[in-house]
Amino acid sequence: MSHRAHETTLRVRYAETDRMGVVYYANYQVWFEVGRNELMRAAGYPYTRLETAGVSLPITSGEYRLVAPARYDDEIRVVTRILEVKTRRVVFGYEVRRGDELLATGSTTHVPVAPDGRVVTLPPEARAALSSFAVPR
Amino acid sequence: MSHRAHETTLRVRYAETDRMGVVYYANYQVWFEVGRNELMRAAGYPYTRLETAGVSLPITSGEYRLVAPARYDDEIRVVTRILEVKTRRVVFGYEVRRGDELLATGSTTHVPVAPDGRVVTLPPEARAALSSFAVPR
Amino acid sequence: MSHRAHETTLRVRYAETDRMGVVYYANYQVWFEVGRNELMRAAGYPYTRLETAGVSLPITSGEYRLVAPARYDDEIRVVTRILEVKTRRVVFGYEVRRGDELLATGSTTHVPVAPDGRVVTLPPEARAALSSFAVPR
Amino acid sequence: MSHRAHETTLRVRYAETDRMGVVYYANYQVWFEVGRNELMRAAGYPYTRLETAGVSLPITSGEYRLVAPARYDDEIRVVTRILEVKTRRVVFGYEVRRGDELLATGSTTHVPVAPDGRVVTLPPEARAALSSFAVPR
Repeated sequence: MSHRAHETTLRVRYAETDRMGVVYYANYQVWFEVGRNELMRAAGYPYTRLETAGVSLPITSGEYRLVAPARYDDEIRVVTRILEVKTRRVVFGYEVRRGDELLATGSTTHVPVAPDGRVVTLPPEARAALSSFAVPR
Repeated sequence: MSHRAHETTLRVRYAETDRMGVVYYANYQVWFEVGRNELMRAAGYPYTRLETAGVSLPITSGEYRLVAPARYDDEIRVVTRILEVKTRRVVFGYEVRRGDELLATGSTTHVPVAPDGRVVTLPPEARAALSSFAVPR
Repeated sequence: MSHRAHETTLRVRYAETDRMGVVYYANYQVWFEVGRNELMRAAGYPYTRLETAGVSLPITSGEYRLVAPARYDDEIRVVTRILEVKTRRVVFGYEVRRGDELLATGSTTHVPVAPDGRVVTLPPEARAALSSFAVPR
Repeated sequence: MSHRAHETTLRVRYAETDRMGVVYYANYQVWFEVGRNELMRAAGYPYTRLETAGVSLPITSGEYRLVAPARYDDEIRVVTRILEVKTRRVVFGYEVRRGDELLATGSTTHVPVAPDGRVVTLPPEARAALSSFAVPR
């Protein structure tokens, strides 16, 4: 991925581990959420503002690869990019790293919907803000 | 506790364990929720019906004791009782068991609120239904 | 998918919802775990037995599609299939349904590893048990 | 509580909310874990070091009060104190605040155990480090 990247860090919680001694796989999805949430804030259009505008961005599909396990108390870097922004579709990409070591990658595809579940177009301001991150570089 | 008891069973999920090899302590609160949810259904007044009536029952306080650890794949019995039902207050009590072995106990205190957060009185039908479980025996 | 299917049911927990009023997307991964866990039990080789044999089956990759939202208190059917069993690789496929309505699909790819993280071959008995589910029909 | 306090901050995740639109009650227990984890690091004896020494600190009991709801994307302060340190018992106390507003309080009682589950004494170094936080002031 050569798109502009946003990075946020988090500390692995005991709650996030499982009896294999590593982070339970579903929790990478939660970290992806933290990544895209912080990217949107950094882009000047926080997700809360989108919700206030009556639009949410539920996930319609996703995929992930788990390369090496994260462990309790690790300091984790979540590197998030916007791979695509269209009026009715946003794709985020993620890398999870411990220092330079790659632990996981993934992407999620989102569709803007109104409170009644109908697909709508992304508000122009949201689209402009997210597009600033979608420029390949 | 000598009140009428409702029992539901569940299977411990891998997601619920932590790297100590046992169930992470916050998950007992989730099991308590499963217990009171199923008790309300058994009492003929499911929690969804309360929400449809515009009332929710958030928790204002709780306590718990963890006696012995639950483990992955254990079959768990959640025994739930209603310890108190008043117009503006409901108290649930819980026992978590593996077979006859006691693993945990706890209680949660709830207050009926409207969507705006204001404390309201419990709908009379809900109170009647829950009271059927609150009779000491 | 035309493989032999195993089905298990679960009730959506309040804990599994988010403020959009629907099930938080990471929880489908937890339900997938419930599905494969119950499939392995039904196949006569529970996951606990695999761990006792010193082998675990961590996930190396996965993908999912979310078609329609699951909601609090829904009764959910998790339909699980084994799409592939090789000595060093197992692929599970999932459908999540509410009645007949399809809510989500997904798959997870697993690799057998020793406690030290080294990739090993699946114990022959486990492979035989899982293969009984991997027959197309 | 007049004991020395340690403070850590966190941002409410979407995953932590429920369909009532507020943080699901079990997640306060997870935040308490974050608080005591960071307190131990600040005290110079991280929890990971305790585990390396073969000792874990499972919770034997706890209680909490929920005063006002935390919401998605809130910046939360977790204020943690050590209320008691004995050779076979540690008690942590917590306050959860949004700015100055008190959202929740709680405490957890822990007992040091060996990997086989036997109660042991807290390693002297751990006790000394934690005691530095247990001084009333």
